[in-house]
Amino acid sequence: MNHSSRLLQDAVEAFSSLPGIGRKTALRLALHLLKQEPEQVDHLSDAIKQFRREIRLCSACFNLSDQDLCAICTDHHRNKQTICVVESVRDVMAIEETQQYRGLYHVLGGVINPLDGVGPEQLQIESLLVRIRKHAPEEIIMAISPTIEGETTIYYISRLMRELPVRISTIARGVAFGGELEYADEITLGRSIMSRIPYATNSE
Amino acid sequence: MNHSSRLLQDAVEAFSSLPGIGRKTALRLALHLLKQEPEQVDHLSDAIKQFRREIRLCSACFNLSDQDLCAICTDHHRNKQTICVVESVRDVMAIEETQQYRGLYHVLGGVINPLDGVGPEQLQIESLLVRIRKHAPEEIIMAISPTIEGETTIYYISRLMRELPVRISTIARGVAFGGELEYADEITLGRSIMSRIPYATNSE
Repeated sequence: MNHSSRLLQDAVEAFSSLPGIGRKTALRLALHLLKQEPEQVDHLSDAIKQFRREIRLCSACFNLSDQDLCAICTDHHRNKQTICVVESVRDVMAIEETQQYRGLYHVLGGVINPLDGVGPEQLQIESLLVRIRKHAPEEIIMAISPTIEGETTIYYISRLMRELPVRISTIARGVAFGGELEYADEITLGRSIMSRIPYATNSE
Repeated sequence: MNHSSRLLQDAVEAFSSLPGIGRKTALRLALHLLKQEPEQVDHLSDAIKQFRREIRLCSACFNLSDQDLCAICTDHHRNKQTICVVESVRDVMAIEETQQYRGLYHVLGGVINPLDGVGPEQLQIESLLVRIRKHAPEEIIMAISPTIEGETTIYYISRLMRELPVRISTIARGVAFGGELEYADEITLGRSIMSRIPYATNSE
């Protein structure tokens, strides 16, 4: 589409470089900006630029951070005896959203995936071992997706930690809450029967 | 959602201030930026800021423009005897996309809509009359949406132009190409029977 304005063309191209935004949506976004005050648009533009320029990874847990250590690692109210090992910063966000976990994290930056050329040395596994040796936490929770690559990664890390005095657990897997049994895949259903848990009744 | 990073929070808020982008999409866009080179993100950010700061309306036709006069008004290959009157810059783009029109435009900036407080004085109607008096074009094409407000605007402008030596036309209205007759609304269908046009056969 020829917009007879280079400025408009550039703005449309900028927006459509983002994932899931086509040229029509990009045009709509650009025209929307014209209805905003220039100061508001400056603020938007600066927030994007500053985010990319200044964000970094926490030097302890590799979560996204504004400073050297992230807000979770520096929070004195969090339980430093538990480290939850996750694949990505999105997983940290997802777990934080549940408000069920008050320990620390360790972001691996992916899972072992030889087909994609991701070996253990590309992940934050060595730094996890260093951290465990240094701070001696009580428990490591493996909150990694139950895929082939995820299970491989959990196995690999747990082997490295065999000698360390730390308890290792994984998040519970099974039929999701609200899920229909008949629609659960057979591996999930099979395993959730194998690893069934005692039922606590009210009379107990 | 608390992102434990103010920079991320700001970027997510910036993106979600755009129409049609919720907080989940905004987060996805922000995390996408981390995979880009900082220079690429600067370019995106600058294109948005520059667009809002530097774009203006063409002083002749009120289309979006980088200079005082827009690329269409300054194009010597365009037919200056025809002015197509449209509601918005989006309509200019839509008509340009068809590649069927090689004349000039005049962007009103809306239609007369008393309920929304839009009167003739808020629109570029006076400037259209000045332009017609000065350049004496042969034809004015009213390419305005066939709504109540659109028809009112066409009627209002055509009354003002009664004394001027210019031909006024409107775009053809009727059942859309590829449209099914039975699904056309009754006003469109009724009017397209009333204003039926002679059928040119190959033998003629």
